[in-house]
Order: sequence, then structure tokens, then C-alpha cells
Amino acid sequence: MTIRDLIARKRDGDALSDDEWRFIAHGVAAGAFPDYQVAALLMACVLRGLTSAETLALTDAMLKSGSSLDLSHVAAPRVDKHSTGGVGDKVSIALAPLVAACGVAVPMISGRGLGHTGGTLDKLESIPGFLTQLSLAEAARQVERIGCVMIGQTAEIAPADRKLYAMRDATATVPAMPLIAASIMSKKLAESLTGLVLDVKTGIGAFLPRLEDEIALAREMVAIGAHYRCPVVVLLSNMDFPLGRECGNANEVAECVALLKGGGPPDLRELTLRLGAEMLVLGHAAPTLSAATERLEAALAGGAALEKFRQLVAAQGGDPAVCDDPARVLPKPALSEPWRAPRDGVVQQVNALGVGRGITALGGGRETMDGVIDHAAGFTLHAIPGDRVAKGQVLATIHAADAGRVQAGHAALDAAITIGDSPVTLPPLISHRITADGVERIG
Amino acid sequence: MTIRDLIARKRDGDALSDDEWRFIAHGVAAGAFPDYQVAALLMACVLRGLTSAETLALTDAMLKSGSSLDLSHVAAPRVDKHSTGGVGDKVSIALAPLVAACGVAVPMISGRGLGHTGGTLDKLESIPGFLTQLSLAEAARQVERIGCVMIGQTAEIAPADRKLYAMRDATATVPAMPLIAASIMSKKLAESLTGLVLDVKTGIGAFLPRLEDEIALAREMVAIGAHYRCPVVVLLSNMDFPLGRECGNANEVAECVALLKGGGPPDLRELTLRLGAEMLVLGHAAPTLSAATERLEAALAGGAALEKFRQLVAAQGGDPAVCDDPARVLPKPALSEPWRAPRDGVVQQVNALGVGRGITALGGGRETMDGVIDHAAGFTLHAIPGDRVAKGQVLATIHAADAGRVQAGHAALDAAITIGDSPVTLPPLISHRITADGVERIG
Repeated sequence: MTIRDLIARKRDGDALSDDEWRFIAHGVAAGAFPDYQVAALLMACVLRGLTSAETLALTDAMLKSGSSLDLSHVAAPRVDKHSTGGVGDKVSIALAPLVAACGVAVPMISGRGLGHTGGTLDKLESIPGFLTQLSLAEAARQVERIGCVMIGQTAEIAPADRKLYAMRDATATVPAMPLIAASIMSKKLAESLTGLVLDVKTGIGAFLPRLEDEIALAREMVAIGAHYRCPVVVLLSNMDFPLGRECGNANEVAECVALLKGGGPPDLRELTLRLGAEMLVLGHAAPTLSAATERLEAALAGGAALEKFRQLVAAQGGDPAVCDDPARVLPKPALSEPWRAPRDGVVQQVNALGVGRGITALGGGRETMDGVIDHAAGFTLHAIPGDRVAKGQVLATIHAADAGRVQAGHAALDAAITIGDSPVTLPPLISHRITADGVERIG
Repeated sequence: MTIRDLIARKRDGDALSDDEWRFIAHGVAAGAFPDYQVAALLMACVLRGLTSAETLALTDAMLKSGSSLDLSHVAAPRVDKHSTGGVGDKVSIALAPLVAACGVAVPMISGRGLGHTGGTLDKLESIPGFLTQLSLAEAARQVERIGCVMIGQTAEIAPADRKLYAMRDATATVPAMPLIAASIMSKKLAESLTGLVLDVKTGIGAFLPRLEDEIALAREMVAIGAHYRCPVVVLLSNMDFPLGRECGNANEVAECVALLKGGGPPDLRELTLRLGAEMLVLGHAAPTLSAATERLEAALAGGAALEKFRQLVAAQGGDPAVCDDPARVLPKPALSEPWRAPRDGVVQQVNALGVGRGITALGGGRETMDGVIDHAAGFTLHAIPGDRVAKGQVLATIHAADAGRVQAGHAALDAAITIGDSPVTLPPLISHRITADGVERIG
């Protein structure tokens, strides 16, 4: 078996065997193949596709190319949430402690921001002292002790995926349903979960452009989970415009603290509760979604969720005072400038992709994996699509380190926010729910 | 314009513009893109294809990524022959001096053997002293002086093609008609030709498995040539079994000397005359193919062709005595062992691919571009498909440096030569002729 022969067979549309995918994953993890052979294989996979059996084989091979989080000492059910990435999507930061406060362990391994999408790790690192690079053993101990952990992917987890993932952006091989499914599931299955909730973003800025492809992705991940006896629930949620009002890093953490105190913007609160309710049901902590929602609301109102976040921050070296006074603890921008409506009218669009790229222009995101982030940079949005606004009204605040960055932020919002005269009907926040039982239309 | 965007567009089936192909070729030549991006682009090209306009644009961009042979001082018409590669295909070595002896200049840039196909340069280098690495200026002066030159591709010629070509084997991106057409034509057009004859091999061991793909390749190359006012004639010739009786390096040179002396095996002589006649007509040295054939036969019979070969060998530093006594001048194998028919019957197949791989096993070919060649190793075939043979009859002689190599040669022939009972009808040596006027079936 040679990698060249396998590239040729995938090029010709053949399905590769389990053994062959194992050969590929182990070779990739070990650095046994030159990058150009791996890139050619990836492009052949994008254009020829993988069968469901191949997607499962690739997932399994990537999972077994590395180690897993050993949670055999944790008696509680273990459920995680993963999102395909969006703008202003800070759900994980409030959700992990909220669900853990309700008795379901959350061993969460997250990513960093890249391109227009933010990353949970970058947001958490705006809390002074917060460490995201724990070893798998440390992470397991923390889950056992306080019921949740939020760390980055380590070199031990699915190294084959790590190397493929690093190459996919530059080789234009990202938008391939089987590769996305295998990448997500190989990492999540390394968390030794008893259930998984996936938030697949739809609309502007989603990875896959067509709804049917996203539903196919969801079904594929549900099928993979079933193979590992890890039930998977997928919600398709809209990402035409940013989630919540804060977009950046430190300001998103502050918005999460507001949510954990029982406040926060309605869309962020709704999505967090919907995802959390699925997690509690999967974790057998509530019999129905409505009972689960009540339990989550009680944990927010009673302070248990905020208290769990305090434990989490303290356990990972961060300043727990962020729970009391985020404005004091979190880094502050040098400049905060208003962006004003250029005319009277109705906000037609606050383009998620445009806002996401604007955050990078402000210094709050990165174009390449080794970029440095200004945690204080970002936008606060004061209007959402459908709002009637007057000329000169402040629709956003731009936070940045200097006037040049502010100007870049202005230009980004000029392009991202459009004002017109038509009334706007907002798309449903959650449109579909996909489980082993099938696809349910919600919106 | 970024290479990533262009990969994504080709992935999605877009046709790229002339400017975009220029950007790609110049970036590849300059080493501006990482190999993995080039590999992903190549695979997208294989699976999405290129339009004729794109194939022409890529050819032109690769041609202009480097220098051309300056033959503006050469008054004579300049015609070359290129073959897509086969086993025992030593035609070029006799053809170049033969055509030059008839007044048409032949500025021939050839390749080395790789995998199962041999290379003209390797064969020539079995002549003691023969140099194939001349500069373009030296090559031009030699064409002016004696009417022919036989050199290797220099770093100055189509460097973009050189780099793409080097990556295509390992990435399984060889069998793509537009890439093959652009690669061949970008190099041949750098020879400042007034005409070109292409020998596209069909059958076992051909690059493209289906006849319709080979005809499409031929038409594409004819169209590219027309764009540069370089008329192209393509002959499709059979490569189910080796051409001639000698397969290797030094022994193939000896067979060419026999041909230049008016002898040689009939198939080698026929193909050489057919290709040469096309060259003379393209070079206006004969009004018709039959007149051209007569002229070539006269040059063989009268010694002019052999005399031109002597001049060529001497001009490039080789020992011209190879023309008089090849057996004395060329390297000799330590061992020459017979391979005998295992049964009575009719030779069904002498598989070109199997014989080609056998040459590599003997040490006479190379698996990687930096492999070293034993010029004395090879096979002499004493039977062709259709011959009736008796058990124990010597059907081939294996030439090699040691007993281990001989044994590998035995194993290769055991697999390559099959003997049965059915009569065998040989396929026509030349099956199609493709020119700007269309496709003509010959066989």
C-alpha cells in the first residue's frame, strides 16, 4: 500500500477501506507523507466525496491516531457542545458552567479564532491569568473535581486531524462535508462523551453554502455518534448576523457574565438555553426539554451557574473577580468610537461575515494561526436587522487600540450594515433539529 | 489574486483567465507557492478539467516562464518529434540524424526514463563521452553547424512545467489530458519549431487508458500548435509490446546504429520512416509522404544518415566509433542469460509494461529521478506476439551485472511473456493520424 496508489484510487472515485484510512491517518500523524501528497488526497476527497463508511473510518482512524481524555473516574454523564463557528458566538463560555451547575459534566475542548470566526480560547484568555493549555490528565482531574473544563486541543488529541486541518484552509479543501464531519467528530469523541450537542451555523458565514449540505453534515455526525454509542443532537442556528450584541473577545466574556447573572441579550440567552436543555436531556439530568429549560433558568436566577463559572475561572488560573466586575478585570480598549446611521430607515443587514472580518481589521482576530490578538478590540452592536433607526443614531461602538484601527472598523461596518426602507422579517434563530430519529423543522 | 482563491475556483469548476494562469505559472517557476497548494491545484485540474482556452493559456504561461532556443540564425525549417514514451522506443536516436541528413533541422530536447518508460538521454549517455547537458546557446550553435542536437531540458526551458512535472507522479496527477498537452507543448514550443510530429502511444503502458482521451489529447496539441503557427501532426502508435528487439540503453543504441546502416527490425524501421516522412513534409523537404519516404530510404542506404549520426556523436563529445563497431564501444553486461519458452505454443503477449518494469529491476531504469542506471542492462527479445515457439526455445536474452539482477529479469519475463494456443492478430503499428484537417484512421 502506498499513499500514491491511494491518492490515485480516490482520484478515480473509489471508496477506500478501513485499513487504508488507518494507513493514511497514521501516516499523516507521523509525518510520513510529504505535504503535497496529503494536499492532493484532500482535494480528491473534496471532489470525489467519501461514503458514510469511509467518513466513519476516517473519523475512527483520526481519533485513534492520538489519545483520549480519560474520564473513567467521572460518574456523571458527560456531554459537550460544539459549534461550527460564527461571529459573536460566545455561547460555550456561559453554557459549560451552566450545564455543569445542573449536574452534567462538560469536558470541553475548543479552538481558536481564524478568519472571520472567533474562538472560545481567545475569548477566555482575555480573562487575566486564564490558562487554556492544560494536559489531558489535569483536564480530567478538573472535570472530576468541579464538573467542567475548557481547554484547547492538545498535540495528543487526534494528531492526524490536527495536521489535515492545518492544511485545509490554504489548499481550499475546507468545504467538504465528510472532512468537516470527521474532523469535528474525531476531536469530540476523544472527550469520552455520553452525549453531544452540535450547533451547525446556517446563513451568511456558514462553512457549507447550501442547507441540504448542512443537513447532510448533521446526519453524518449523528450517524458517527451512534456508532460510538454517543447520541448526538444537532441544531441548525442562523448566523446571518452576529449572536448577541458584543463581538470581539473581552467584551464577549463580559456579555457572558451578564447572561450568567440572569441578563444578556435575548438571542444569546435563547440559544444558550436551547442548547443547554438538549445537553441536560442527553445527560439524563432532566426528562424533557421543558423540564431542562426550567432547571437551567433556575441555575441562572439562583446564582449556581455564575458560581460554577467562578470555580472554572479560578481552577484554570484566571481572576475570579471577572464574575463580579468584568469591566474592571478585563482589558479595556484605548478608544471607543461611535458608528452612526448614515440615513433614516430600517436596518436590513448586519452582515456576520463583514463584522467578523471587521474584528480582524481591528486587531481582535487573526488571519494566520500565529497571529497575535488584541483582546480589548471589537464591536458593540446597538441595533439588529429590522430595527427602525434615525440618521445619526449610534448603531455600534468600535473598540480599538488606535485611530487607524478605528478607521478600519468604520470601513468594515460601512460595508456590513445596510439601511433601507423595507420591513425585515428575521429568520428563526433555530431552524432544524436533527437526531437519530430524523430531521425536524423548527423555525 | 491569491493562489488559494484560484484553487477554490478551479475546485468549483470555474475556468481561470489567461492572467490567472500566468500568475500560477510564474509563481510556480519562482517557487512562490508552497508545494501543497500546487498539489491541491493539480488535483483540482485533473478532476475538473481545463477548457481548451485554459490549456492554451497554461501552455503559453509555462512557455513564457522560461527561455527559448534562439534559432533565428538557422535558415532551414526546424521540425522535432516527441513521443509520449514507451518501452524499446529508441526512434529519436536514429530519427534526428536521419531527418537532419535530409535537410530539415532537428533541435531535439528529450527526457530521462522514469518508471517503466525509457529515456532518450539515458540511452545516448551509454555512448562513452556523450554529453546531453548543453546550454541553449551551445545547442543553437550546433543546430546551425550540423543540423541537429539532442539535449536534456535545461533549467531555462519552461521552469514552471519542470516543477509541476516533478510533482505530478507522486501526487497521482499525471493522467490528465490538458496537463499532458500543456506540458509537452510548452517544452516543444521553446525549440522555435516550424513543425512538430507527435508519437502518442496507445495500448498497454500508455499514459491515458482510453483511445478517445488520446485522440482528444492529440487534437488539443494540434490546436495549440496552430495558435503558434507550428503545424502539428500526431500519429497514434501501438505500445502493447516493445518496439524493436532491444530494450535497455546501450543495446538500444546498437539497434539504432543497425537501423542507420539500413538494417534493424521491421517495426522500428517502419515507425521511424513514418515519423520521418511527416517531418520532411512539414519541413518542406518533400512534397508528399511517399516522396519523403523515398528520400529517407536513400539517406539510410547511402550512408548519409549514419554520417550525420557520427557528426552528432562527435559534436556532443561521444566516441564516433560507436557508428562502426557498437559492440566494442558500448558498455557490456557481465552476464547474458537466456530466457526459454516454458511450453510449446504461440506467443500471446510480450507485455510492454512488464518488460519496462523488468528493465528497472535489472538496474537499467529508475524508480526516482535521482536513480543511477546500469547502461549495459536490458533485454534482447527474440520473439514477438504471434510467433509459434517450442518449449525450451530461447525467446529472450537477459543482460545484467549479477546473478540477482538476472533472476529479477527472469521473474519479470515470466510475468510479461505469455504463451497460449490461439493464433494472434497483431494490432496495426500506427492506428490514427491527427492533423488540423481532422482524424484519419489508418490501421
